[in-house]
Amino acid sequence: MQRYFIEEGNWHGDQLVITGDDFHHIVNVMRMDAGEEILCNHPNGNVAHCTILNVEDGQVTAEVAEWLDSKTESPISVTIAQGLPKGDKWEFILQKSTELGASRIITYQAERSVVKWDAKKVNKKIGRWEKIVKEASEQAHRNQIPSVDGVLSFSALLEESQTYDWKFFAYEEEARDQKSNKLHDYFSQIREGDRVFFCIGPEGGFSEKEAGQLKAASFHPVRLGPRILRTETAPLYVLSSLSYYFEEMR
Amino acid sequence: MQRYFIEEGNWHGDQLVITGDDFHHIVNVMRMDAGEEILCNHPNGNVAHCTILNVEDGQVTAEVAEWLDSKTESPISVTIAQGLPKGDKWEFILQKSTELGASRIITYQAERSVVKWDAKKVNKKIGRWEKIVKEASEQAHRNQIPSVDGVLSFSALLEESQTYDWKFFAYEEEARDQKSNKLHDYFSQIREGDRVFFCIGPEGGFSEKEAGQLKAASFHPVRLGPRILRTETAPLYVLSSLSYYFEEMR
Repeated sequence: MQRYFIEEGNWHGDQLVITGDDFHHIVNVMRMDAGEEILCNHPNGNVAHCTILNVEDGQVTAEVAEWLDSKTESPISVTIAQGLPKGDKWEFILQKSTELGASRIITYQAERSVVKWDAKKVNKKIGRWEKIVKEASEQAHRNQIPSVDGVLSFSALLEESQTYDWKFFAYEEEARDQKSNKLHDYFSQIREGDRVFFCIGPEGGFSEKEAGQLKAASFHPVRLGPRILRTETAPLYVLSSLSYYFEEMR
Repeated sequence: MQRYFIEEGNWHGDQLVITGDDFHHIVNVMRMDAGEEILCNHPNGNVAHCTILNVEDGQVTAEVAEWLDSKTESPISVTIAQGLPKGDKWEFILQKSTELGASRIITYQAERSVVKWDAKKVNKKIGRWEKIVKEASEQAHRNQIPSVDGVLSFSALLEESQTYDWKFFAYEEEARDQKSNKLHDYFSQIREGDRVFFCIGPEGGFSEKEAGQLKAASFHPVRLGPRILRTETAPLYVLSSLSYYFEEMR
C-alpha cells in the first residue's frame, strides 16, 4: 500500500489533508479516488491505515481507519557524519543510509574533501536532499524521515557531537591493528535509546590533525572489518551492523 | 603500497613476472623502477612484499622480500546470488560485495528481472565484470579476488546451490512477520569454514513460484532488518552483518 509522510499541521483529529507533491502522486500517478486506502505517517512516528474521503482541486481529504503497531525504527538513534565526498556519492549515501535506518545524516567539509561547497550551492541543493530521504523513507516503509544537515565545518561538527552518548570515527589505521578495540566491544555497551554519532572521512580519509581533534573530543577510533572500505561503503557497514546487532540479534 | 594480483603461471619460485595491465600500471601510471616495492597477491591467498628487480619492454620482474601474515578474508565463504537488476546496479553490486568480502558473486535471470541478457551480451561484459572485482579487491586490500558468474537461469542457480552448507533468501514477506526466525538464529549456527549461499531477488522481488522452489530446495527465508531494502542494498546488509558477527564480534 502507498505510504505518505504528512506534516503535523495537516492532521486535524482523525482527519488529514494531503496537498502538494503527495496530492499529485495520489491523484495523477496512482489515480486513486474516494474509498481507496493509503498509509499515512504522522511526524511523531506513528502510522495509520487511512481511507480517502474526498478528492478536490489540489487537496485530498482522508480519515484514519486504524493506527498500526509498526516497528521499523531502530531502538538506537544513529547519526552518520560523512566527509563531503566527490560527485553524486553524497546523494547515494543519503538514500542508502535512510534505507538502513539512520536518524540523522550530516555532511561536513573535511580537510581532504576534494570538493568545496559554499552556502549558496548548499541552499540550492537542500530541497533535493530532503526529497531523496523522504522518498527513501517511503520506499523502506520507515515511520520517521531522517533529518539532513550540511555542509558543516569541522569545528561545527565537533560542536554538534557534544550531546551524543557514543562517538566513533572509522579510522583506516585501526583496520591494520589487530590489537585495537573491536566495534563489538563498544556496541555491546550501547543501551536502547542511546544516541550514536558516527563520523566517516572523505575519500582520502582523515588528516592526522582531524584524527587528533576527534580523539580529543572523546571519539573512539574503530575499524569496520579487516578490509579497506570506500568512503561511501563505510556508513552502510555501520548501519547494517547496528541493525543486525540491535534489531536481529536481541 | 600498491597491490597487484598475479596469476599462478607468472610465479617462478621466489620470483615473478608482471605483464599486461599491471605492467602498464607499474611503469606508466606509478612510474616505478628497479628497487621499488610493491605488494603481490598469489592466487592461493597469500600476499608478499616484493622488490622490483628489472623493468623491460612489456615485463616487470620482481622478487619476494617477505611473505606477510595478512588476514583480510572472511572465515566464512559467502556467495551472493543476485536477481539480474536494472541499469548499472549489477556493477555497483560487484564492486561493493567485493569490498565487503564476498567470495563469489552470481547473477541470475529472475522471473521479475526487467532486463533479459543473452549469452552474446554476457560474453561481451564478463571481462569488464572481472576487472571491477579485481580493482575492488586491490582497493580493499583483499587477498582473494571473488569469482563472478552469470547470467544463470533460475534452475541452474538451484543446481549451483546444492553443495553449500547454508542457503538463505531475502524475503520481503518475512520483514513484516515478527514471529519468523531471525537472521541471527541461523548465523549463530554457522561454523568457521562453512559455505553460505545468499539469494536476493531483483527489484520486484521473488515470484511466489520462485519462493516455493527456493523453500523446496532447503533455502531459509529471512528478513534483513525491519525495513524494506532496495535490491542493491540487500547484499550489502548481508555481507556487513556477516563481517560484524564473524570478524568483529568473535
